[in-house]
Amino acid sequence: MQMNPNRDTQLCMSLSGRPGNFGLRFHNHLYEQLGLNFYYKAFSSQDLPGAVGGIRALGIRGCGVSMPFKEACIALVDELDASAAAIQSINTIVNTDGHLKAYNTDYIAIAQLLETHQVPKDSTFALRGSGGMAKAVASALRDGGYSNGLIVARNEQAGRALANSLGYEWQAELGNERAQMLINVTPIGMTGGPEAEQLAFAADAIEKAQTIFDVVAIPSETPLIVRGRAEGKRVITGLEVIAIQALEQFVLYTGVRPTDEQFRLAVEFARS
Amino acid sequence: MQMNPNRDTQLCMSLSGRPGNFGLRFHNHLYEQLGLNFYYKAFSSQDLPGAVGGIRALGIRGCGVSMPFKEACIALVDELDASAAAIQSINTIVNTDGHLKAYNTDYIAIAQLLETHQVPKDSTFALRGSGGMAKAVASALRDGGYSNGLIVARNEQAGRALANSLGYEWQAELGNERAQMLINVTPIGMTGGPEAEQLAFAADAIEKAQTIFDVVAIPSETPLIVRGRAEGKRVITGLEVIAIQALEQFVLYTGVRPTDEQFRLAVEFARS
Repeated sequence: MQMNPNRDTQLCMSLSGRPGNFGLRFHNHLYEQLGLNFYYKAFSSQDLPGAVGGIRALGIRGCGVSMPFKEACIALVDELDASAAAIQSINTIVNTDGHLKAYNTDYIAIAQLLETHQVPKDSTFALRGSGGMAKAVASALRDGGYSNGLIVARNEQAGRALANSLGYEWQAELGNERAQMLINVTPIGMTGGPEAEQLAFAADAIEKAQTIFDVVAIPSETPLIVRGRAEGKRVITGLEVIAIQALEQFVLYTGVRPTDEQFRLAVEFARS
Repeated sequence: MQMNPNRDTQLCMSLSGRPGNFGLRFHNHLYEQLGLNFYYKAFSSQDLPGAVGGIRALGIRGCGVSMPFKEACIALVDELDASAAAIQSINTIVNTDGHLKAYNTDYIAIAQLLETHQVPKDSTFALRGSGGMAKAVASALRDGGYSNGLIVARNEQAGRALANSLGYEWQAELGNERAQMLINVTPIGMTGGPEAEQLAFAADAIEKAQTIFDVVAIPSETPLIVRGRAEGKRVITGLEVIAIQALEQFVLYTGVRPTDEQFRLAVEFARS
């Protein structure tokens, strides 16, 4: 059912340094499929307080927040959901009559994926990265009961801070340690980056692991994921992360949960 | 050509106390017909500075401004076009890389209509009303060379101020004076108002006039217009005003001027 826009149409949006097409295609496709009178628009901005003020003043229902705004947004909202409070990083704002509540659906997506892929709770892991997304992933691991972990980050200050805050170890590089789960939360393997062709972990480490988890979504078949698949490992991809975090945003904004099939088709459409 | 929304889609919007459907249907229909990657959304707001700040911060391309924001907006923009400066009332904001320039396309529309309907320049007129729209109409008359006019307004202060600023006379009510053009710029005849069924001018005055001009657009066939038509007068309707002012907004936002036929069909669609 295609809705014609009218004065009751609600707007949802994203705010990011470099808007992509995935979110807006995902949300708009589901609005249409489910006959919801919403429209989704991707924005960038040089003025975060002005942009969040606009969300409030214009009654924009929801906003996906990406790099580089995930932390700076915190001071501009009224309430943090538990998913965002622990991490102090948000990716979703829900506006209910001018009250802005922020969530972190990346955290929610990662917690879900560890469950649905049945990653054993006693898995040791090495997580590479120390940025905002690394914080979301490491927090979901900690809260999911994965207590034996190593944060691998060249940035010593950020890496140590993240590790210490969650009770993990830190190392600048992964040496000969074995880890049952390898998690990449850096841009290594990302299209257009300087390390697009590189493996985020050494071949030897991959061989010894059971689970390979890469949050890079463009492409989701990174060199790390390709290698993991070839070796028969359990793999969790960045596409799964962005799809589930978008689904949870959709539910927060509209109050409607699509069926599994509607979700699957929306992801397929959004990628095309 | 139907565009799918993508990250390059530009947003235009309206800001009014009570959003209607005309503008958003008019603009969205033409975007689709002309294959322009734009989307138009109607907003209301309790926070005008926040809303205009949002236009700037989010790079929203254009904004139609209606009651009650037409005057308060002036302090929030960077530049006034001549159409808005003389009246100190705006109905359009164009955002070019963060620079907000305001226009009054009501003024532009009224000036055009006096031309296209070939209303003689030496017509005497009586204009009823003293609000922001009355200012736009009276200014267009003055600038169009209609020098012999009477402002009729129960609000003495506003009526006298408007009349004096443009070199016209003021009266609280129209007595036995004859005027060749009668112009209603009050809510008399508007659907839902307390005077929906009333004539904005006495039957006798209508009989003596040559031109009947009513800016009320809902309905555009007001009792005044219906009576004027029945008596074979030259009539100019509020529908013509809102259609042309919307067209001029469209041209300002997109840089594209639709054909007469595209314009006619868009008005037809927007009213349906």
